[in-house]
Amino acid sequence: MSALALHPDAQDLLFRQARTANTFTTEPVTEDQIRAIYDLVKYAPTAYNQSPLRIVVIRTDEARERLLQHMAEGNRPKTAAAPLVAILAADNEFHQELPTLLPHFPQAKDLLFADRPVREESALLNATLQAAYFILGVRAAGLAAGPMTGFDFPGVRKEFLDDDHTPLMVVNIGRPGANPWFPRGPRLAFDQVVTTL
Amino acid sequence: MSALALHPDAQDLLFRQARTANTFTTEPVTEDQIRAIYDLVKYAPTAYNQSPLRIVVIRTDEARERLLQHMAEGNRPKTAAAPLVAILAADNEFHQELPTLLPHFPQAKDLLFADRPVREESALLNATLQAAYFILGVRAAGLAAGPMTGFDFPGVRKEFLDDDHTPLMVVNIGRPGANPWFPRGPRLAFDQVVTTL
Repeated sequence: MSALALHPDAQDLLFRQARTANTFTTEPVTEDQIRAIYDLVKYAPTAYNQSPLRIVVIRTDEARERLLQHMAEGNRPKTAAAPLVAILAADNEFHQELPTLLPHFPQAKDLLFADRPVREESALLNATLQAAYFILGVRAAGLAAGPMTGFDFPGVRKEFLDDDHTPLMVVNIGRPGANPWFPRGPRLAFDQVVTTL
Repeated sequence: MSALALHPDAQDLLFRQARTANTFTTEPVTEDQIRAIYDLVKYAPTAYNQSPLRIVVIRTDEARERLLQHMAEGNRPKTAAAPLVAILAADNEFHQELPTLLPHFPQAKDLLFADRPVREESALLNATLQAAYFILGVRAAGLAAGPMTGFDFPGVRKEFLDDDHTPLMVVNIGRPGANPWFPRGPRLAFDQVVTTL
């Protein structure tokens, strides 16, 4: 019997067959797909349900042009060609929503998160967890994600965000095109990663 | 037609029915399960395939006692009762493995990651993504995860890790026990999180 409860097809879709794509077909990524991805991954856990991830979806040519100028040169062609692009960011003022998000402990807003540096550290950790959930959510929609940190962070922040939002990554989204990826790199063996005490 | 390719049962298992558990049954979490979880989630993406997550699995009573003294008081009973506990950490010297992990660009080790502060930032981001993959992997095994950051980070680092490894979180693992969770908190609506340009 398998040690996993998740169906093998789902394992393949999310982890084994899915790959980071560098080329895409022209098939559009719909608003329905983005909504379905968010409505799935929003349930995955964050500390105190703080849910600090914010997403800027780049759909118009005009917004795409504004983004491209901030991408590293090596990433520009893929971000130009991807059917849809998302900027993932952390909201450092997430605590404003905590009384709604955490109804059994509404004091968390002031007791735990009154200090901005504490919020920034927590938002970074938890929005990064949510970025991973989002990547797997893109795969759950049968699409390929191409997450990148190769861009001018202050430039993207100034162009699309504000002082309260920290960019984390830019994600190309679409169906894999021609020669979409290198052969998959090897992974570390269990015993290189896991120590049992 | 659904906008997601992932089977609804898999959506439920990973996102909708799964919850962060605060109590657990006594059913053991086996070595086979931990291996199966790792062998699944190891395929999810990291930048340059750097794979910086390292895991310390706490299986013996002696190791558990050493961990409990560093947990925040509110977390101590759950961590004492969980069938298995894992410390997730980032390896700041991950670049040593890059020539193996990234065979088409082995120079990345020295060209991109010669500086320790650069490595620390990259290890933190990418090991946090892998922590999220791991949490969903625990759920893929039909188990509940209880991720926590409420512990003495320097204490856990000194007790179980070293200067090259940064603790990220401690995760309780097992089957949900009696009254395992609060009612699920609300999530932010799509339009609170996503801006489309």
